[in-house]
Amino acid sequence: MKPDSNKKLKREIYNIIFEAETPRGKIFDIVLIILILLSIGVIMLESVSAVKEKVGTLLLVLEWIFTVIFTIEYALRIWVVKNKQKYAYSFYGIIDLVSVLPMYLSLILSGASALLILRSVRLLRVFRVLKLARFVGEGQVLANALRASRYKITVFLVSVLTIVVLAGTLMFMIEGEENGFINIPTSIYWAIVTMTTVGYGDISPHTPLGQAVASVIMIMGYGIIAIPTGIVSAEMAFQKSKEVTTEVCPHCLAEGHDKDAVHCKYCGGKLN
Amino acid sequence: MKPDSNKKLKREIYNIIFEAETPRGKIFDIVLIILILLSIGVIMLESVSAVKEKVGTLLLVLEWIFTVIFTIEYALRIWVVKNKQKYAYSFYGIIDLVSVLPMYLSLILSGASALLILRSVRLLRVFRVLKLARFVGEGQVLANALRASRYKITVFLVSVLTIVVLAGTLMFMIEGEENGFINIPTSIYWAIVTMTTVGYGDISPHTPLGQAVASVIMIMGYGIIAIPTGIVSAEMAFQKSKEVTTEVCPHCLAEGHDKDAVHCKYCGGKLN
Amino acid sequence: MKPDSNKKLKREIYNIIFEAETPRGKIFDIVLIILILLSIGVIMLESVSAVKEKVGTLLLVLEWIFTVIFTIEYALRIWVVKNKQKYAYSFYGIIDLVSVLPMYLSLILSGASALLILRSVRLLRVFRVLKLARFVGEGQVLANALRASRYKITVFLVSVLTIVVLAGTLMFMIEGEENGFINIPTSIYWAIVTMTTVGYGDISPHTPLGQAVASVIMIMGYGIIAIPTGIVSAEMAFQKSKEVTTEVCPHCLAEGHDKDAVHCKYCGGKLN
Amino acid sequence: MKPDSNKKLKREIYNIIFEAETPRGKIFDIVLIILILLSIGVIMLESVSAVKEKVGTLLLVLEWIFTVIFTIEYALRIWVVKNKQKYAYSFYGIIDLVSVLPMYLSLILSGASALLILRSVRLLRVFRVLKLARFVGEGQVLANALRASRYKITVFLVSVLTIVVLAGTLMFMIEGEENGFINIPTSIYWAIVTMTTVGYGDISPHTPLGQAVASVIMIMGYGIIAIPTGIVSAEMAFQKSKEVTTEVCPHCLAEGHDKDAVHCKYCGGKLN
Repeated sequence: MKPDSNKKLKREIYNIIFEAETPRGKIFDIVLIILILLSIGVIMLESVSAVKEKVGTLLLVLEWIFTVIFTIEYALRIWVVKNKQKYAYSFYGIIDLVSVLPMYLSLILSGASALLILRSVRLLRVFRVLKLARFVGEGQVLANALRASRYKITVFLVSVLTIVVLAGTLMFMIEGEENGFINIPTSIYWAIVTMTTVGYGDISPHTPLGQAVASVIMIMGYGIIAIPTGIVSAEMAFQKSKEVTTEVCPHCLAEGHDKDAVHCKYCGGKLN
Repeated sequence: MKPDSNKKLKREIYNIIFEAETPRGKIFDIVLIILILLSIGVIMLESVSAVKEKVGTLLLVLEWIFTVIFTIEYALRIWVVKNKQKYAYSFYGIIDLVSVLPMYLSLILSGASALLILRSVRLLRVFRVLKLARFVGEGQVLANALRASRYKITVFLVSVLTIVVLAGTLMFMIEGEENGFINIPTSIYWAIVTMTTVGYGDISPHTPLGQAVASVIMIMGYGIIAIPTGIVSAEMAFQKSKEVTTEVCPHCLAEGHDKDAVHCKYCGGKLN
Repeated sequence: MKPDSNKKLKREIYNIIFEAETPRGKIFDIVLIILILLSIGVIMLESVSAVKEKVGTLLLVLEWIFTVIFTIEYALRIWVVKNKQKYAYSFYGIIDLVSVLPMYLSLILSGASALLILRSVRLLRVFRVLKLARFVGEGQVLANALRASRYKITVFLVSVLTIVVLAGTLMFMIEGEENGFINIPTSIYWAIVTMTTVGYGDISPHTPLGQAVASVIMIMGYGIIAIPTGIVSAEMAFQKSKEVTTEVCPHCLAEGHDKDAVHCKYCGGKLN
Repeated sequence: MKPDSNKKLKREIYNIIFEAETPRGKIFDIVLIILILLSIGVIMLESVSAVKEKVGTLLLVLEWIFTVIFTIEYALRIWVVKNKQKYAYSFYGIIDLVSVLPMYLSLILSGASALLILRSVRLLRVFRVLKLARFVGEGQVLANALRASRYKITVFLVSVLTIVVLAGTLMFMIEGEENGFINIPTSIYWAIVTMTTVGYGDISPHTPLGQAVASVIMIMGYGIIAIPTGIVSAEMAFQKSKEVTTEVCPHCLAEGHDKDAVHCKYCGGKLN
């Protein structure tokens, strides 16, 4: 093989695997997503004991087929990418590797239970599907809104956790072990179940005082749910009104410029 | 019958059935909605075994009366509409047909259970009530806001599904079969019940580690609920902001008049 | 008593009862609210069988004392108000009357159960506490935002009801009587419990297909909850940005003028 | 010790304890938060009977170590602060004292149960972690938004409480004692559990009429949850909109620059 044709093949494969705008790149992405979904389906079915008894061998064979396909895909990615190290240590690079390793490890190490834990990490591969988000360009807006409100959300979370610890301890003292609030950690678990309005009902207050305090906690939780929503809503509305571009300043590489910006707001350099 | 009077009758029926702004058109719509609600009521009552035993025959007769009325209505619609094909293949056209067919099929095909499945589609007829939405003109704003945020909502749904699959698998490994997390699909069902804050309590974590992980999932779900709300709120606020006209007062050149303004709010001059 | 001093007394009582900005008016309002709360407390305690056995007679006496006080208050209101008929037929006038009548009716009509139903209407008296809202001036903004979005909310509610009817019927067919979905109305009740994320768990899907469909309904409900919030948020933000005054145009009596408006936007007349 | 070196030491300790921007101040804060979390962990573990049986003595020793450390910290704070009285009566001053007192009281007063109640107040110490919020500067925005909407939230809470009392009474009459609605307070507790969409399922309607009324309450609760969210969202968006500076570019006179902008986004000139 001439180095030139090798180079050409490399670029072609790169375009198929890493680019999503060409027709073949699109087909590759869709096929890959389907394979990932099928592989997840197989893992799920393996966990259903009735199914595993009947078609356990078939599932194992399918699992090996998917593993081999994903291994070839990983090898191709490493081969065609220019900066191999950068890819290998990137989020998607690690996920790609981690999604095939457990199967090979299962050959060396016996011990089903331990394996299962590693295998489940393969489900993270679904995140690769999110690659689509980049192309619809809207994932960025969501991420921006969340990043911009990260301090407010932290303050909110710390407050909620404090309330939950206090509420749990209070209820532990009011209701006590005989009503299912067996210790403070369990009572805090109950407080979280209540504040987040999940309300399993596995633990619930039985004394009139406990029910009164629980009512206050619930109404507080009802009001508190408004806060993160308010934070994100305001941020989204702000992002919407500004319509920030994803353009990068060619001079200082800063991001987050307004749509109508002509110069970079950080270095003053002209934008494209 | 002269073709002219036939044409006149056709137009008159068209106005009654398809137009909602004439007094008779309004009456027709209201009567139709009442008939649909009554028909749904009959279907519901038929499913209550105690009621069916007592007045099953009456319900069947009523069901046939409704079916005949809706069949006549469908025939009239086909007759008076100009573009018959367009109507027949439209969403409402298909619903209109599908809401009468199962009853006739029940004469040829015996087999109650299969029939019931088809009959339930008739409930879709309620959507016709939504026709009212067109006239209040607000349904469009809602639809616009949802359409504009469809990409963001897709990204959000994919993320939620990924989290739910991972959370379900993790909890399956932590809690295991003995605590109700019998397999991965069931555990994912639990994760959805938890993340959406529904919280039936049919499955709930029993181990301390399981309760801790569940608490993290719940607080995450609590935060994540803010995202779709933020998306739609921002979009609605944007749609709302467009409601202010850009009209300029011809007398004092002031801007920012409300949609329903007749006079300029600054100089009192008449707007166009 | 001279008619002049009578008139003076009447005005004084009017100021105490109907005006809330004078010191004595404020004291009257606070005392009234405390009496209403105490009266509600007595009704609540009467429903607790353990308490009723012990101090039932005391509660009955207290109930009569409250009734007499509220009757005197109602008589005074009728006496001092200028437009007696307008007050008597107003929302608060009817509530004031309805909150004393059941007790007197209990003397003529024996039959505890029927009485209890009427007595509960007295709890509506709490709404009078909301009178305070008028003075903080914020209740109006809330009411405006809700009124402005009433069409959107109607469209939303009709859609939710349709989805709930379809989801309930579908689950009735999938799960059936043996899994608690005993008939369509009960299944619709389940669908409402699920869509609103309440999730009692008294009825929950047991078949894999049922759990899958329920998951879809839950995620839909999760997304749908964003819609009314978005509607109200956008409306509130709009009201906030406009800061609509409660001023009424002295020429055409129209409301809803912007804070910076000089002329009425409907008739062009000068505002105060 | 010379008074001068004493003064210097005092200022140094003040900088470490009260200032968070110096490197040593930061380390102190982080160590303190870790100690508080560990101390809370010990209190929690003490409530788990299985753990207490095994390592109860160790937990008690740890508890005393934490108490001594926090006592020294409190003494140092009092010593170095200028306005001792202001600190002692401030929120954090009281919390600091209250978090060490119960342990010393346990030496004088025997009686475990009473002690436990006092000890739980120590958990309030977590609030000190929120001190971090001051430095991220975002806690203030949250607090502003909540303070600005306090009247609207009050109106909302009073309305919700009224609805809950009426709904509870209505359900008590419909369902009655035999279905778990044993008295009005318990029925109101149920109504709160339902309206806040918590839905434990410990009490749930069994009669068809009860389920129908519960459905209406749930859909109402679903709609009502939109109101506090709308209030806070609108307020947050308002606070957010104030974040854009009103600074004018000294070169081209353009407005609307972001808070973090260094250069004008239109002409690239340096802003003040």
